[in-house]
Amino acid sequence: MFVSRPAVHPVEAPPLTDAAENPPRVRMKDIQGMPGTPGGLALRLFQFAFAVAALGVMVSTSDFASVTAFCYLVAAVILQCLWSISLAFLDICSSSKTLIEEFPCSLSVYHWRWGKKICGITSTLTFAAACASAGITVLIGNDLNVCSQNHCTSFETATAMAFISWFAVSPSFLLNFWSLASR
Amino acid sequence: MFVSRPAVHPVEAPPLTDAAENPPRVRMKDIQGMPGTPGGLALRLFQFAFAVAALGVMVSTSDFASVTAFCYLVAAVILQCLWSISLAFLDICSSSKTLIEEFPCSLSVYHWRWGKKICGITSTLTFAAACASAGITVLIGNDLNVCSQNHCTSFETATAMAFISWFAVSPSFLLNFWSLASR
Repeated sequence: MFVSRPAVHPVEAPPLTDAAENPPRVRMKDIQGMPGTPGGLALRLFQFAFAVAALGVMVSTSDFASVTAFCYLVAAVILQCLWSISLAFLDICSSSKTLIEEFPCSLSVYHWRWGKKICGITSTLTFAAACASAGITVLIGNDLNVCSQNHCTSFETATAMAFISWFAVSPSFLLNFWSLASR
Repeated sequence: MFVSRPAVHPVEAPPLTDAAENPPRVRMKDIQGMPGTPGGLALRLFQFAFAVAALGVMVSTSDFASVTAFCYLVAAVILQCLWSISLAFLDICSSSKTLIEEFPCSLSVYHWRWGKKICGITSTLTFAAACASAGITVLIGNDLNVCSQNHCTSFETATAMAFISWFAVSPSFLLNFWSLASR
């Protein structure tokens, strides 16, 4: 009797995918407030507006230049303004299909990636300047009570504007750092 | 003829692992400077030492209480001291096998996870206080030139110590945030 005995090597079927265990990693590309999203652009413009307001109020006082911390605030806020408006422009630019094909934008999208990193530095500078100004404003207004000879209200307003400008950029910075880390 | 015909359902063997495509995600567990590592503990102790130094130097001046920003610096630095030494203790505690089995540590390891998150808040407070003190120190020393009636050197030293204390904790905070994000 010749009966073929098929040689069977059964393979224990492993689960076809391990999708249940390792779900595809979610990239936080679309969270509003991140650079490149409409929310991020709104934050950027908000930050620019408050930085300009802080600059305007501080420069409108005649004697800000006699205090180093106020000069530093003016410098930090100018840097913040330039940075915010550049990044806002690049946000608009890189989201526009027609613009992105033109030369200046293609070039600048590269710089934009650097801009996102340096964003944290300018916001830290603004925060430091706002803290220093706040310290001096409280010294003049509360500790020494010499508001009659100084522009206390203007100093306070400028400091508050600088704080708001810093506050506006913080979510953008944290989300950006988070997305860099989770890449 | 009765010959059993084994019913074979061959399964196409999928590749056993897709390790080549999806390498296991690297957890940044071992980078020195992160909470829980010896480097992190060293940073924590460094930060505590400088916070204590800032506190000591500031409190040694008799007139710090007349300036709000200096009082704020003292408060922030006290908070920083308490926080640093608690976290240093928990770092030592959670790395010790014998200690971790005892009650206080088992309880505190849970709190330690919160501590790592709040770490960023205390360091921001210290930074803000150091900036405010720096603004006033420069105002007294450079703008008004009234160092003869004030303890300029002590104020400058305390401010510098607070900045160093903040600087010591920044890598720990950034690495911790990074590891939270890349989880």
